[in-house]
Amino acid sequence: MKKLRYGMIGGGIDAFIGEVHRKAMALDAQFEFIAGALSSTPEKSLRSGQELSLARNYASWQEMLKSEQALSKEERIDFVVIVTPNHLHFPIAKAFASAGFNIVCDKPLVHTSQQANELKDIFQEKDIVFMLTHNYTGYPMVKQARHMVKAGQLGKIRKIVVEYNQGWLANNLAASGQKQASWRADPAKSGIAGAMADIGSHAENLLSTISGLKIEEICAELTSFVDGRLLDDDANILLRLENNTKAVLMASQIAVGEENNLKISIFG
Amino acid sequence: MKKLRYGMIGGGIDAFIGEVHRKAMALDAQFEFIAGALSSTPEKSLRSGQELSLARNYASWQEMLKSEQALSKEERIDFVVIVTPNHLHFPIAKAFASAGFNIVCDKPLVHTSQQANELKDIFQEKDIVFMLTHNYTGYPMVKQARHMVKAGQLGKIRKIVVEYNQGWLANNLAASGQKQASWRADPAKSGIAGAMADIGSHAENLLSTISGLKIEEICAELTSFVDGRLLDDDANILLRLENNTKAVLMASQIAVGEENNLKISIFG
Amino acid sequence: MKKLRYGMIGGGIDAFIGEVHRKAMALDAQFEFIAGALSSTPEKSLRSGQELSLARNYASWQEMLKSEQALSKEERIDFVVIVTPNHLHFPIAKAFASAGFNIVCDKPLVHTSQQANELKDIFQEKDIVFMLTHNYTGYPMVKQARHMVKAGQLGKIRKIVVEYNQGWLANNLAASGQKQASWRADPAKSGIAGAMADIGSHAENLLSTISGLKIEEICAELTSFVDGRLLDDDANILLRLENNTKAVLMASQIAVGEENNLKISIFG
Amino acid sequence: MKKLRYGMIGGGIDAFIGEVHRKAMALDAQFEFIAGALSSTPEKSLRSGQELSLARNYASWQEMLKSEQALSKEERIDFVVIVTPNHLHFPIAKAFASAGFNIVCDKPLVHTSQQANELKDIFQEKDIVFMLTHNYTGYPMVKQARHMVKAGQLGKIRKIVVEYNQGWLANNLAASGQKQASWRADPAKSGIAGAMADIGSHAENLLSTISGLKIEEICAELTSFVDGRLLDDDANILLRLENNTKAVLMASQIAVGEENNLKISIFG
Repeated sequence: MKKLRYGMIGGGIDAFIGEVHRKAMALDAQFEFIAGALSSTPEKSLRSGQELSLARNYASWQEMLKSEQALSKEERIDFVVIVTPNHLHFPIAKAFASAGFNIVCDKPLVHTSQQANELKDIFQEKDIVFMLTHNYTGYPMVKQARHMVKAGQLGKIRKIVVEYNQGWLANNLAASGQKQASWRADPAKSGIAGAMADIGSHAENLLSTISGLKIEEICAELTSFVDGRLLDDDANILLRLENNTKAVLMASQIAVGEENNLKISIFG
Repeated sequence: MKKLRYGMIGGGIDAFIGEVHRKAMALDAQFEFIAGALSSTPEKSLRSGQELSLARNYASWQEMLKSEQALSKEERIDFVVIVTPNHLHFPIAKAFASAGFNIVCDKPLVHTSQQANELKDIFQEKDIVFMLTHNYTGYPMVKQARHMVKAGQLGKIRKIVVEYNQGWLANNLAASGQKQASWRADPAKSGIAGAMADIGSHAENLLSTISGLKIEEICAELTSFVDGRLLDDDANILLRLENNTKAVLMASQIAVGEENNLKISIFG
Repeated sequence: MKKLRYGMIGGGIDAFIGEVHRKAMALDAQFEFIAGALSSTPEKSLRSGQELSLARNYASWQEMLKSEQALSKEERIDFVVIVTPNHLHFPIAKAFASAGFNIVCDKPLVHTSQQANELKDIFQEKDIVFMLTHNYTGYPMVKQARHMVKAGQLGKIRKIVVEYNQGWLANNLAASGQKQASWRADPAKSGIAGAMADIGSHAENLLSTISGLKIEEICAELTSFVDGRLLDDDANILLRLENNTKAVLMASQIAVGEENNLKISIFG
Repeated sequence: MKKLRYGMIGGGIDAFIGEVHRKAMALDAQFEFIAGALSSTPEKSLRSGQELSLARNYASWQEMLKSEQALSKEERIDFVVIVTPNHLHFPIAKAFASAGFNIVCDKPLVHTSQQANELKDIFQEKDIVFMLTHNYTGYPMVKQARHMVKAGQLGKIRKIVVEYNQGWLANNLAASGQKQASWRADPAKSGIAGAMADIGSHAENLLSTISGLKIEEICAELTSFVDGRLLDDDANILLRLENNTKAVLMASQIAVGEENNLKISIFG
């Protein structure tokens, strides 16, 4: 079986999630990491690639796109993995999709529904394989839970409580210049939501994936507890799902004492 | 040190919580259980008292009130413990308070604010020591938590999540005639609330006791999941407390798999 | 049902286990605590009894024996509970048994087999109900485990590992005069074994009670880790039981970090 | 940084530990897997290599040795990983070491001290980098424990209890032909010890690695509980280590209910 060859955008020195993607793919032993534009400046990108013995090490995603397009179909990457801060997901996905590359992209894909529709049209026109990564749904226990619900082992689902708690933004970490906190705190990079976009989206994804139920009504209490923070850092939401199912979704980044605590209870 | 002597109303054969009160007082070794009208019929009351070698065993709370009143101050009980179904709390408390007896009464004391005010007036006029039992606040860990909040060890309280889950009413248990389920399912005996009165009140009590904060706004989703049930069996509530503290309160008696699971998280 | 009335020897001010016995009996609501000689000096004994509102409060166990004997059968205590340091178990049990009183006594009953046989003869001659308390075997989970083994649910028992770990004697606590540590460190009061007598005996009792198997061979490593300690504070023992069952028994009072950790694994 | 290229012997279809080695190396992203003789027959070896897209896929380790030796230093593998059943560790290690290849080999390296000395001489003569894998010592928590002991944070070590329990050999699994059980049950392949070689060796390794103490005296009870089994399936051992440290080592493969439970307690 031939291995699939991929390139990565983002995931260099100081990055958080790119290495997780690379390790996960390495565990499967069916992928080769051969190209990348790994950081936000040419210098940092090239240095990051050298540390990883990267075969085709590019200074920017624009250069990478141009060079990979110029290669033969046999030589070029089979797909590109986008693991940049949120605001770059859309332009990079649009550029690579337009050039016919398959894409794996971190959530959230876009900041507006209009952008989402624009990409959808390109994916269809170019017949692109596109995958948005919500990592938690990949766990065997989640797949098993989804299967149990689907198979009716819990009967009709009455109530769901899903909770994603972190405490690392309980203080104004962005003010210190910490990279991960800084772009998340900036609406121009992170989008219009804070904790809800960053981790509430995972909670919603887990709820939807396991239950298979659509959300019909929302009553949300979003709060920004830290002085000067522009986006929500805490969310408590009452949900009404299809079929008279009630749910509570909580997501917090000011939950002191919690590292990265995602849990879901489903009552049938 | 002289032991305090008490009488109990309710808590006989088939009862649930009366024995818990008696054991808790026995552990303290400062109380003597000497009188009681332990059940809803004369026959069952007397039989219950015999099984417990009760010194002054009455057929009804009315008889008990009359007889104890007739005794000298040295002989009569020091206080009465009311552990009947909810709807009897008010008339019994009113009668014994009016006769000058001190009272320990299970929650909820009354079904309406008018009744509460009426009792308050009698207690003050007669100089009664009255205690409403919310058992969970007696635990050392709860007292410690309250102390930590009060002492400022958590700083300003930002968020509280309190949850009380049981699964024993996931089906229509009252239809089977089970005693504990039956009176709880009947609005005439239980009051206008179901799960919220029975266990949500404990969750609220825990939140208020530990945080010391008043509730200012409520957004509640109450559901009755079981066909034919007249009262709520599941509640999910967003709360705004004083001082910009946000809270979520959940109480459910259809949470299959949970026995009696009360927990609270407080984030400062 | 008439309550049984008991007297206690030991268990006064500064004592550890006497109050545990009293609370356990109070929970059952079938006992009355009416007499006692609660400490090692007349003054401390009387003061202890006053604090507990004890009806018949004696200065010494000798006085208690004499006075209770003088009472009518209806008035005198139904049984005596002996909760003194180890070396007094034998003389007190002998004296009360000889006078015809039923006895509940803490382990270890005696320090030598000769003493055990002497008591056995008195118990039989006087037709005494005698109970030696090994508290852990009273737990429902232990009874359930014993039942499961007996019922053959585990098949033939192959291996047992039982472990009782405490850390409170990791240092020379007796040197500080702490009461509980002091008598345990003194061979004249504690007997010829230290950790093995104090807690290893509970481990052995648990193993024997649950498995129902007799010990046939012993290979023991007893150590006294603390300088100046005369008795073992750590024991690791290989056991061969009946029916080719192998076991490991560990008991330690120098296991820093452990409070009172008793566990058993049984493999069939 | 250039990646190191390795070949593997064993670890093909039906194998257990080879894939674990490959995944562990893949996580480090500093190794390339380029050659192998992955199973015990030519047909199975070649099929295993094809499934893994192996660049240089050999039918046997003898062929692999011959071919890799014939390659230039730049082309040949940097080291070989031996993950076969126990009895092949020695001949393969001897052959590859004699030819100058660096070696990673699973435990146990040999069955006799004579074989160990023979290999030691070859490694020194040929200046081979040789690594014996005891996987558990690679965990950060184990390294931290070792560091804490070394730094004196626990003071003088008094007692160690190490336990490795599995239940998968509680029945005569080898009789069913199951591959993993079969070679372990055969003294010719497994060596003179059963559970002690297979997992007791890990327990010993953990104890020695963390404590840094040498074993001075051993009192061992080895048992073979399953009818017809030639090697021990349960071991309980009292140890005396340097410096008056006492230890208990238990290893069992008949511990029904345990999957793969390794734990160690160290008391200072």
